[in-house]
Order: sequence, then structure tokens, then C-alpha cells
Amino acid sequence: MSFDTLLFISNKKKGLPHSSEEISNFVHLAVKGKIPDYQISAWLMAVCFQGLTFKETLALTEAMATSGKVLSWDDGGPPVVDKHSTGGVGDTATLVVVPLVAAMGMRIGKHSGRGLGHTGGTIDKLESIPGFKTNLSESELRKIVNEVGCAIASQSKNMTPADALFYSIRDVTGTVDQESLIAASIISKKLAGGAKTILLDVKVGSGAFMKDIERAKALAKLMIRLGKACERNVRALLTSMDAPLGRSVGNALEVIEAIKVLRCEVPLNDPLRILSIEIAAQLAAMCGMSKLDKARQEAEKALEKGEALGRFRGMVKLQGGDPKVVENPEEILPRARKVLKLRSTEDGFIKRIDALAVGELVRDLGGGRKTKTDKIDPAVGIVLCKRQGEALNKGEVLCEIHSNGALPEKETLSRAHKCFTFSKTKPSSLPLIISRL
Amino acid sequence: MSFDTLLFISNKKKGLPHSSEEISNFVHLAVKGKIPDYQISAWLMAVCFQGLTFKETLALTEAMATSGKVLSWDDGGPPVVDKHSTGGVGDTATLVVVPLVAAMGMRIGKHSGRGLGHTGGTIDKLESIPGFKTNLSESELRKIVNEVGCAIASQSKNMTPADALFYSIRDVTGTVDQESLIAASIISKKLAGGAKTILLDVKVGSGAFMKDIERAKALAKLMIRLGKACERNVRALLTSMDAPLGRSVGNALEVIEAIKVLRCEVPLNDPLRILSIEIAAQLAAMCGMSKLDKARQEAEKALEKGEALGRFRGMVKLQGGDPKVVENPEEILPRARKVLKLRSTEDGFIKRIDALAVGELVRDLGGGRKTKTDKIDPAVGIVLCKRQGEALNKGEVLCEIHSNGALPEKETLSRAHKCFTFSKTKPSSLPLIISRL
Repeated sequence: MSFDTLLFISNKKKGLPHSSEEISNFVHLAVKGKIPDYQISAWLMAVCFQGLTFKETLALTEAMATSGKVLSWDDGGPPVVDKHSTGGVGDTATLVVVPLVAAMGMRIGKHSGRGLGHTGGTIDKLESIPGFKTNLSESELRKIVNEVGCAIASQSKNMTPADALFYSIRDVTGTVDQESLIAASIISKKLAGGAKTILLDVKVGSGAFMKDIERAKALAKLMIRLGKACERNVRALLTSMDAPLGRSVGNALEVIEAIKVLRCEVPLNDPLRILSIEIAAQLAAMCGMSKLDKARQEAEKALEKGEALGRFRGMVKLQGGDPKVVENPEEILPRARKVLKLRSTEDGFIKRIDALAVGELVRDLGGGRKTKTDKIDPAVGIVLCKRQGEALNKGEVLCEIHSNGALPEKETLSRAHKCFTFSKTKPSSLPLIISRL
Repeated sequence: MSFDTLLFISNKKKGLPHSSEEISNFVHLAVKGKIPDYQISAWLMAVCFQGLTFKETLALTEAMATSGKVLSWDDGGPPVVDKHSTGGVGDTATLVVVPLVAAMGMRIGKHSGRGLGHTGGTIDKLESIPGFKTNLSESELRKIVNEVGCAIASQSKNMTPADALFYSIRDVTGTVDQESLIAASIISKKLAGGAKTILLDVKVGSGAFMKDIERAKALAKLMIRLGKACERNVRALLTSMDAPLGRSVGNALEVIEAIKVLRCEVPLNDPLRILSIEIAAQLAAMCGMSKLDKARQEAEKALEKGEALGRFRGMVKLQGGDPKVVENPEEILPRARKVLKLRSTEDGFIKRIDALAVGELVRDLGGGRKTKTDKIDPAVGIVLCKRQGEALNKGEVLCEIHSNGALPEKETLSRAHKCFTFSKTKPSSLPLIISRL
């Protein structure tokens, strides 16, 4: 194929549309190493200014999806589903949803990522379980899914290599935040994963990459349209990420919290429990297994009967982890040397818990990465004892900070304190689930 | 110095201004190889959309100028001048102006480029003279200038390496045509050349990079402002490049034509002669040697007395070339195997000679480069026997095409014919010198 990269870049710069064939050539040549990074980055920057039409975004998504191996689950077995969260703080829903949908009779062989910046990553969380292996081959993944209904693997280098290449360039050239590029990145990975039914959890708020509801809604709608054009059944939830979703932020601490939700040791109104049930129920309804209301009840039942917990235990065991983590997570998982307690200096209400600031503090305690090669400390993190909107008295514990000394104590407590804003009256807040698309 | 390249790119993308220090850090780190090409190209593309303020353009110009060696001519000798043409077809003025200003008592140690695309390059033209050496060290350049008043060297790798790096990236990422980047590239090289007095010849028209008078004027004004901010005396001419400037297009053919001008074998109204006299006179006036009108007379005299020709002969000799080229250029210079004659099929006038099409035809005959590594054929080219606006009869020779067979004869003649447009009435045209700034 003859392809003029300079003309391709110049056309986007001028605002002229690309044909689907041109986009496909560009992506496939890039993956073969035939287009230098400096031309890829120039095109990405031009896209940030000129945008991509829907047709161009679709062509990019399909080319990226087919740049590597594409899984197929058309084996006549139970329906295969997938979920994706755009990333937040204390967002442990995947660890609950994955065994929950398995318990409800669906299959899920999820590929997840590592954390970057202030947001956590499912793979990092799972790797805090001793022995847990996330680097699964396709046949290992398939075997575990068919045995226990669920598995979670790290992104494979054989799948969507174009997304990995483009993302590594976007990350260092200021071209991450373009809607079509974000949508193509997410949907291409979901297409390669092979599930026909996909629920997207688009996070909005200070702790999310999207700060603004209208932009998040536009992104969600674009991803649904792309999925439909590729014959996938896709729905999206817009959910709040102003405060952390769970009480715990930090890798092992989030695994502990997910196990608590699976063991039904949290209140019925716990946001992580509510969101996990909603996602699982939406997926069941999309598969035609039940109507949505009934699916919600089935999800609650699967939690209460311990079926979801059992699937989690099975998955941990088959992926090489210590299944006793389900009974004694606090003994099995790594623990920080010191737990600092931050106490309130005020009476009143918690007006806001700044998810971004919490995420950044946990990252700086060693729980996250500033660059891709940073090692993480699975033990550190923050457990919120009070949540946004709750009343509190002076002297009550606001949060516990699990630290191995990466930051001085005084700085840790002062930064933790700045995550909280107080008010004398009960504050209003956005609902957890802002809208269903 | 601590420098955050990602933040630098993101700021330009958002339209936030850079400080002069940031631009200087970016340029100097880039030249040291500390900033990868994909970040440089992303920034260049963002600049194409967001532009640079005057302050930013000045900082970029100064940083590029000081990225390598900067020559100084503050030795109490005769004034040192420089000229720059933005590039055209059949634009041989440098070969006439350089010895002419030397004959008028100024010094010029010019650094010139090679041709790219449809435009010719002074260095390629000079290298058609057997033995002529353009790769001069600083001391060789200085010695020749001080002996004969003039020398022409190829761009040195030690001078403005930042411009060479940025240009090599702009060339393949569609980011060549941004006004501030063009101005910074030109003026940085002139600053490094060390002359205090600089005349810019900004070409406008179909055969120039700038097709539009208003854009060309804006570029000229920006370059004058940059030069003044750097304490240089800078003026600009806006000159027409709709038709080729000289009669000859092609490397050896243009040397022959320049020698004819220096030998006063062309009519007084010959455009190449007129423009060369104007540039030399402007430079003399800017140096305070004479008022402009008197300087024009002095330039004519220097041509008519053979003084400019003598300087040319001296320069050729000192740069290792065969000085007999001045007496017998057609014997000394390489000649093409075949000369095709294109005859008019019409009576009337030549309405237009398309400089771009002529330049592209000469390039494809082997006289120019499509990529930087292409070898050129110095002998090939086109000599126009009729010029734009001239009357002609059917059967008269329009042009002679000097070919070594790189294109088939039929295609050559048909493409040459398409360079000409005819009319029944005498056409009007832009003046050669559109304006003086």
C-alpha cells in the first residue's frame, strides 16, 4: 500500500477529512514501526485542534482494535460481558462486579490496566494478593473464565498494540484529552476483548479525568455510538467522582474493602455496593437475562448468598493467589508500618472530600506512579472514616492514613487535612449515579 | 535547569504564552538531544494552531541563533552585509549581488542553502563550477572575504543547529508554513552569520512559498521587527515570483546567466539585472555609503566597468573553482546531451509563465530534489526564449529544454507547453519590485 504520511498530517491540519482507508493505513503502518513517532505526535496534535468526524473516529477505533489479536467468545456458552471505568479514586467496582456477574450466570474475561497519576488500577490492586498472577495467556484466561465465570488479566502486548503506541505518545505530548482519541482508545480495547455486551462507567468530577458533566455525557454518547456501529450492545452510566467512591484508597486497602462488600459487611446504602449492583444488573438486563429491576434484586441476592464471594475466591485461586484472602484479608495482604489518625478540628458537616487530592496523596505515599516505571507500595493508602455529607464532632477521626514513611508525618497529616472541606449546615451533593445512557 | 517539556507543549496547546526563558530552555535542550523529536513535532503543530507572540518569536529566533557558533565581523574593516531570498524559480540574484556588493566596497560572507522542491539553491548552482568548494571553515570564509570582498559557503553544521533540527522535523510533519517559524528560521541564520546590515528579498506569487501579497508583507514586517530587536539594520523588498526571475532555470544554466549579467550582456531592463542592482544599492544605502539613487548608479557602474565580474572571478578562484568559467562558461560548465526546442502554436502574447510548473519540470528533469538525499544533475534545465508579456508568432521558439533523458521527450515538451498561457492582447502584470519595506 502506498501511503503519504506528510499529506495525511497536512490534510488533518487543514481540516480536510481522512478516508477510512487512510486511517487504517496510518494505524497499521504505525504499529509496524513504519511511521516515526514525530509524525504520529504531529497528527495527534492536529487532531486535538481539528477533531475527528464520527466516521474518522470509527475507522480509528476499528483499525486500533484489529492492530493485534481480537478475542472471540462465540462458543455457545453463557453470555460474555465487559465493563470499563474511565478511572477514579477509590473506584474498586471492578473487583466486586466481575465475580458478581459470574455469580449471576454471565462470563467476564476482563483486561484491566495499571494505575497512572492519581487514579488506581485494578491490576495493581489485585497484585497486592500474594501469588496473584495477572499476566495470563489467552488460553489461561479462557480456561479460568469457563471454570469459574470470571478472570482479570493485565493488558496483553498482543492486543491493541496501536492503542499502546498512541497512548504512550499522547501521554508525553499533551494530547491525552481529546474526546475522539479517548473514545477510540477505550472502545478499541473493548472490541478486542470480544464481549458483545459492554457497560461503560464514565466518571465525572474533580477526581475524574472529565471534570464537566456535558463533556462526560458527550464522551459516553460517542462511545455508545461507536460500539453500536461495531455491533456491540453498549450502555453507559455517568457517575460522580467528586469524592472517592469507596472508603479506601490504596491498593491492598481497596481489595479489603471489595471483599467487605462481597461479604455484605457494608451498609445497604454503601456507594461501592450500590454502583456494583447497578453495573451488574445493567449487564444482565442488556444480555436479556432479566428486566432491570429484577436483575438488581438478583444481584443483591448473589451478594447476600455469598455466591459472588465464592466466585471471587475461585478466581483468586485459579489465578495463583492465596484464597484465604477472602477470610482474612487483613492478615494475608501487606500492611503499612504505621497508621496515622487525622482528627477533625471542627464541628459540623463534611462539605467535600477532594478525590483528586486524596488520590495524589496516596500516590505520593507510594501507592501510585508518577511515571510508568515507578514501583508501587501496595500497603499504603487512606481509609475515610467519615464520608462527604456526614456530620462530625471536633476530635472525631476523619481518616486513617496507612504510611511506610515515604512522606514526613507532619506533611502527610497536613495534606490529608486539606482534602476535607467543612460546613456548618448539611451540604447537598450530586447523586452517585448522575444518569443512565 | 529544570524544564517540563510536557507542560511546555500543553501550555502552547491551550494558548498560554511561553516565557523567553522557557523557549530558550526548550531550544537548547532540543539541540542537546534531550527532547525527543515527537515532543518537538507536537509543539511545532500546536504553534501552527496557536501561533507565537512577537516576544515568543524573538526568543525563539535568539535561542536558535545562539544554538551554535555566531560569527562576528567587528574588526574595523569595510561594512559586512547579507541578503536572503525566500526562494524562487530562476532566482540567481545572489550570484550577481554578492560580487557586486564586494565591488562597491562592502564585504559579504554569505551562507547559502541547497534547493528543495521546485526552488533552486545557490550552493547547488555554484557546485556546477568544476572544483568549486562550498564547504568552507570559518577561517577560510574570513580569509576569502577579506581578500576579494566576497565568499559563498554552504550552511555549516556548527551554525544554528537548532534551525537544522527544527526544519528537518517541520519538513516531514506539515509544519513548514507558519509565519513565526519561517521568520525565526531565516533571521536566526542571518544573526549567526554576523552581518549588521541585511536585505531580505521576499518572493510572492505562484513560484514562491508565499502566494499572497498580504501574507508576504506580514512575514517581511515580522522579520524586519525581529532584526531591529536584535540590533540589525534590516530592510525588505517584496518581489514578484509569478514567472521565473531569470531566463534560465537549472543549476549550470543559471550560473551562465549570472555571468552574462555580470558581463553586461543582457538588456538594461533585464529583471535579474534590475533586481540585483536594487539589492546591492539598498545595502550600500543602509550602510550609509551613498544615498539610494546614487548607490544605484554606483552599482550600474561596478557592473559596466567589469569590477563585479572581477570579484566573481576572484571568488571562484579562491574557492577552488575554475576561473575560466567567467570567459567561457558554456565550455567549462556541464552541458546536457540534448536541447529540445518548444515552439509556439499560437500568435499573440505570453500571458503567463507558471514559475511553479517550470520549477517542477526542471526538478523532474533531474535539476532538483524531491527528498534531501536525491542527487542533482547540474546540466539540465530550461532557458526561456520568450518572457511573460512578450509578443510572439506561431512557430517561434518559446523555450529550450536541456535534458539528459530523465523524462521522455514527449512528456517533457507537453509539460513545458503547459507552463505557458497565451492571450491575444498584451497582458498586464505585477511590477518586479512590488514594494520596499
